[in-house]
Amino acid sequence: MEQRVSLVTLGVADVPRAREFYERLGWRGQEVEQTVFFQAGGMAVVLWGRDKLADDAGIDDAAGDGFGGVVLAHNVRSAAEVDDVLADAAEAGGTITTPARETFYGGYAGCFTDLDGHVWEIAHNPGFTVTGDGSLVLPDFG
Amino acid sequence: MEQRVSLVTLGVADVPRAREFYERLGWRGQEVEQTVFFQAGGMAVVLWGRDKLADDAGIDDAAGDGFGGVVLAHNVRSAAEVDDVLADAAEAGGTITTPARETFYGGYAGCFTDLDGHVWEIAHNPGFTVTGDGSLVLPDFG
Repeated sequence: MEQRVSLVTLGVADVPRAREFYERLGWRGQEVEQTVFFQAGGMAVVLWGRDKLADDAGIDDAAGDGFGGVVLAHNVRSAAEVDDVLADAAEAGGTITTPARETFYGGYAGCFTDLDGHVWEIAHNPGFTVTGDGSLVLPDFG
Repeated sequence: MEQRVSLVTLGVADVPRAREFYERLGWRGQEVEQTVFFQAGGMAVVLWGRDKLADDAGIDDAAGDGFGGVVLAHNVRSAAEVDDVLADAAEAGGTITTPARETFYGGYAGCFTDLDGHVWEIAHNPGFTVTGDGSLVLPDFG
């Protein structure tokens, strides 16, 4: 697993309201399917409905066992690499919360939690560019 | 507020145990005062005791009101800029959870939560470099 974060997704109650908050701070994003993507240096900050985020990550948010509505994503360059990182995470003691599978956006991804319950998604998304130095570059969704 | 994240700090129960997990995934960090810093592209991932992280951010973790033990930091180039960003965040509807003050590491920082309770620390840390493009570069703590 390379030493980097591709996206930080913040689960929110109301995507337009959350977007407005960040735009008032001067941020500019793109909205696609009720999801807002902000390019932030070599990574992205994403706003998404908290319920969808928890479902996607295989987390029972209602259980109230510490999920804070934040998911870190680590994007890789192939589906095989998704499988490799998830296998390494499980071997290291992490918990696979969403086994790798094809995603609704045409990619391949799965999630694990670390020893303290922090959630990582390992994803191959052919629509996003992972550069040689590991930076993530969002497309122009326009 | 520039559109970037400088550090993602993960609150953990046991810093050496958490460090070992990430090192088993191939990550290499530096430990300073029971805090582990991993350079991750133009930002850093940090492991710190969850109790200290919550205290520092002005969050009552015991209240169980949704803190997931994650704090996003946005490092700026001066103390004045810390004040400016916090004022903008409050004006946009965020909640100041730690007013800006001198920090134990010789910097100046304060925290706010966004409309969904996600915690941001706005910090000026003279020991960390914020480059022209906004990337954060950790020092060699050696």
